[in-house]
Amino acid sequence: MRIRNNPKALDKLEKSKFLIANPTELKGRWAKEFNNNNPICLEIGMGKGDFICGMAQQNPDLNYIGIERFPTIQYKGLRKIEQLKLENVRIINIDAIELETIFKPNELAKVYLNFSDPWPKSRHHKRRLTHSSFLAIYKNLLPEDGEVIFKTDNRDLYEWSVESISQFGMYLSNISVDLHESEFHKSGLNVVTEYERKFSAKGFKINRLIAKYKKENK
Amino acid sequence: MRIRNNPKALDKLEKSKFLIANPTELKGRWAKEFNNNNPICLEIGMGKGDFICGMAQQNPDLNYIGIERFPTIQYKGLRKIEQLKLENVRIINIDAIELETIFKPNELAKVYLNFSDPWPKSRHHKRRLTHSSFLAIYKNLLPEDGEVIFKTDNRDLYEWSVESISQFGMYLSNISVDLHESEFHKSGLNVVTEYERKFSAKGFKINRLIAKYKKENK
Repeated sequence: MRIRNNPKALDKLEKSKFLIANPTELKGRWAKEFNNNNPICLEIGMGKGDFICGMAQQNPDLNYIGIERFPTIQYKGLRKIEQLKLENVRIINIDAIELETIFKPNELAKVYLNFSDPWPKSRHHKRRLTHSSFLAIYKNLLPEDGEVIFKTDNRDLYEWSVESISQFGMYLSNISVDLHESEFHKSGLNVVTEYERKFSAKGFKINRLIAKYKKENK
Repeated sequence: MRIRNNPKALDKLEKSKFLIANPTELKGRWAKEFNNNNPICLEIGMGKGDFICGMAQQNPDLNYIGIERFPTIQYKGLRKIEQLKLENVRIINIDAIELETIFKPNELAKVYLNFSDPWPKSRHHKRRLTHSSFLAIYKNLLPEDGEVIFKTDNRDLYEWSVESISQFGMYLSNISVDLHESEFHKSGLNVVTEYERKFSAKGFKINRLIAKYKKENK
């Protein structure tokens, strides 16, 4: 995506209490930052914030942290959070590879990966957020029953990710290869991202899965 | 599928050397039946035989056994096998639940499930050929590196099967959620079933996966 630059964005971002400028200082202290012991969900690549704001409104008893690398986009998400006064949301600006400098083991409850960069070239596959190296990082930060919830319209990324997650030894559930035709979506539980709305309208099928490190008890 | 009855089919079937009338007698002796030690691949639900005949022609160094429960359909497959003189193919008529009465452990190399009955009602899910009870049967008959290869146009069955296979502790690979757009199909390696040709032409997406009992070495 090409991003139009907004020179004022960075200034405005720095003044918001919802943006954590030095997240490493909060490692092991996120409960204090949120002023409660509610579970913390992380969205890697929050874009303009439709998903994280929708989830935070739907689940006031959960905390949400969004990562977005592009300040101009981050600013748009931040504006939504401020307008909606979502006290259970924070934004940080780091690279996912550095997550362990921000969170202690078990500090997160869920990791959301929404429409992550597909990195189509083979030599870049290691940058995919469902690569085994990232799955290992999430594992270190999640409890035993933690979840990684992944949505994408990119067929190649989805197919590759199912294989990567399976070969990592994780267990798959809630598979959708056409999410917008699922009961989950039709019942209104699927909080839609801005990207998802746009590409679904163009006829792209949305794929989703939940990956767990522990086998389900059924 | 409704099947028009052909009263002559059963008679004709019984006279063919390609149809094994008493397959339990060959348990542990299939190599002798094929007169070689080539690996044996099983297709459960061979339909009119386009897939098994295509595979048998593509791979003369492999043996193929097809199961089909409906004699009228079985007859059509049998006719193809006889016309093509495919010495590496046999047909049997049993229920998949009885596979262990026909084959000894390690007697099979691969199991193909093509467009299996989706059994849409929840109370019938245990009849799905990707249910854990069937995965356990295949495991008993396949070597450690054996494969279950599954194709379907039925979205619900596919999604359910990915989950069932993963929760069984198997490893997934070669995932396709639109097989006919894949390199595997475009390179001509995907042998198409008659059902697949018909429903793909109608715009249905074909899904495929390979499930293994052992983790891949990569």
